[in-house]
Amino acid sequence: MSLIALLDHAAVLVFALTGALVASRAQLDIIGFAFLAILTGVGGGTIRDVLLDRNPVFWMSDPTYLGVAVLAALVVFFTAHLFESRYKAILWLDAAALSFAVAAGANIAAALGQSAPIVVVMGAVTGCLGGLMRDVVANEVPLVLKQGELYVTCSVAGAAVIAFAPVAGLGPTLTVLVAAAITFGLRAGSIAFGWSLPVYKSRPPRN
Amino acid sequence: MSLIALLDHAAVLVFALTGALVASRAQLDIIGFAFLAILTGVGGGTIRDVLLDRNPVFWMSDPTYLGVAVLAALVVFFTAHLFESRYKAILWLDAAALSFAVAAGANIAAALGQSAPIVVVMGAVTGCLGGLMRDVVANEVPLVLKQGELYVTCSVAGAAVIAFAPVAGLGPTLTVLVAAAITFGLRAGSIAFGWSLPVYKSRPPRN
Amino acid sequence: MSLIALLDHAAVLVFALTGALVASRAQLDIIGFAFLAILTGVGGGTIRDVLLDRNPVFWMSDPTYLGVAVLAALVVFFTAHLFESRYKAILWLDAAALSFAVAAGANIAAALGQSAPIVVVMGAVTGCLGGLMRDVVANEVPLVLKQGELYVTCSVAGAAVIAFAPVAGLGPTLTVLVAAAITFGLRAGSIAFGWSLPVYKSRPPRN
Repeated sequence: MSLIALLDHAAVLVFALTGALVASRAQLDIIGFAFLAILTGVGGGTIRDVLLDRNPVFWMSDPTYLGVAVLAALVVFFTAHLFESRYKAILWLDAAALSFAVAAGANIAAALGQSAPIVVVMGAVTGCLGGLMRDVVANEVPLVLKQGELYVTCSVAGAAVIAFAPVAGLGPTLTVLVAAAITFGLRAGSIAFGWSLPVYKSRPPRN
Repeated sequence: MSLIALLDHAAVLVFALTGALVASRAQLDIIGFAFLAILTGVGGGTIRDVLLDRNPVFWMSDPTYLGVAVLAALVVFFTAHLFESRYKAILWLDAAALSFAVAAGANIAAALGQSAPIVVVMGAVTGCLGGLMRDVVANEVPLVLKQGELYVTCSVAGAAVIAFAPVAGLGPTLTVLVAAAITFGLRAGSIAFGWSLPVYKSRPPRN
Repeated sequence: MSLIALLDHAAVLVFALTGALVASRAQLDIIGFAFLAILTGVGGGTIRDVLLDRNPVFWMSDPTYLGVAVLAALVVFFTAHLFESRYKAILWLDAAALSFAVAAGANIAAALGQSAPIVVVMGAVTGCLGGLMRDVVANEVPLVLKQGELYVTCSVAGAAVIAFAPVAGLGPTLTVLVAAAITFGLRAGSIAFGWSLPVYKSRPPRN
């Protein structure tokens, strides 16, 4: 299995875990767990593939992705009572999934010869939209839009590494690893140290 | 008209009725009724067709689907005051729509030679996602995620019949009818007798 | 640049402004502004292109669309405190964006030889779905479903002009201008004078 395929499977697995954990909050049955796990696990990559007109969509040509997501649902269904005291651990796993997904997603766009802005957008789409759909469907505040989470910012930064790697002369494996590391590092800084960008604050109108 | 085309039109019609009924709760105008009716009626099948790269999407090659959805919107706009005292009747109609859509959707995937897991997923996508979009847009709790509704479970069970029919040696018409009957039967048991799967209950953490 | 390309860019720009303004309410950072600006600006046209199987999607073949949306995000991030006292002005800009997007979107479907119902639907999809996704993601009541906004109605009316222009014998440029004018005029009447269609009112059930 190539590095990209490995990252892609890891991203699906860990995003599926987060989907199943959201299902545990909503006290769903096992099929509800699997539904949210699949939606979260493959959602972002599916939108990427539809936009890039990759056919078939990645999990349709390789059903192990669905198997991985269902496995994550099963594991969480029987062990979520352990996880619940470990919300921090989940945030960290999610940060890992994000870094895998961004690197893999941007790399796929770059390999298709897309321009730098599209590579960046596809990294962010792959990383952010599965979790966004999970949160919208489960009626939670989307993590990508929460203040101070740097979620989209990490994705853009990581994907930009892949978009501009040809300029910097990095080899393909190193590029992917650096992209994932930068995504994870920024997200980790946000979780652990509260790193954030200035937010918009409304000021009294001048007129 | 073939059995599959008949099921497909029936599913669009009845899902459109449910979309228009949600519009009546939000007190929309007639165009708002049509908007939600079309979204609910053709939404699941549209995502199925985009994922399967079926081109054109089913309602674009045959505009009678749109006509059926608009008709449903008109009927409900002028008669919803009768329906409102009949929420049970609507739940039953919706169960029928689900069984039509799952059988038709899974059959389309099977006819394209997709693998069993993809056939099952496409049945669930066709059956569940139109209603999911209706509920998300109208800001209602998604029916597919409500406890004890067995919504996704019925879809998976019905679609599995079609996925594994070749093994069982059923003929194509019988397969579709059995799939629809199993979907409807499970959903009916859930509505009438409260059939459900065990849900996840959080237990005190061990540590 | 052709008239259609001009309308398309203008629609992306002004919809992106509205997305960024929603971001300012949620007090996001600059990347959050860009995320909502891009989603709102290109969302409707993206769904149109996926449904019509136009490949590549419009903003992938011409990255200036993304640049325009990011520019809108930047402008709003630094000036939203001025805009906030001008909600009316924004409603009017949004009405302009809607009229551009409906005319451009319906025209694209007509140029592909689609039937009249599909042309109308594609106009409404292009005009309405970017804002719908913005509102769903930001957890606001979707403008397209608000009572008395005539939002979908304006889109359908404007797109119908393009669908039936061949019958009326209008030239292509005039058709697009009339379509945009009708969309804008109806929406303006709704904002300024409260024009609306009768809404569904529940009556006491007869039985």
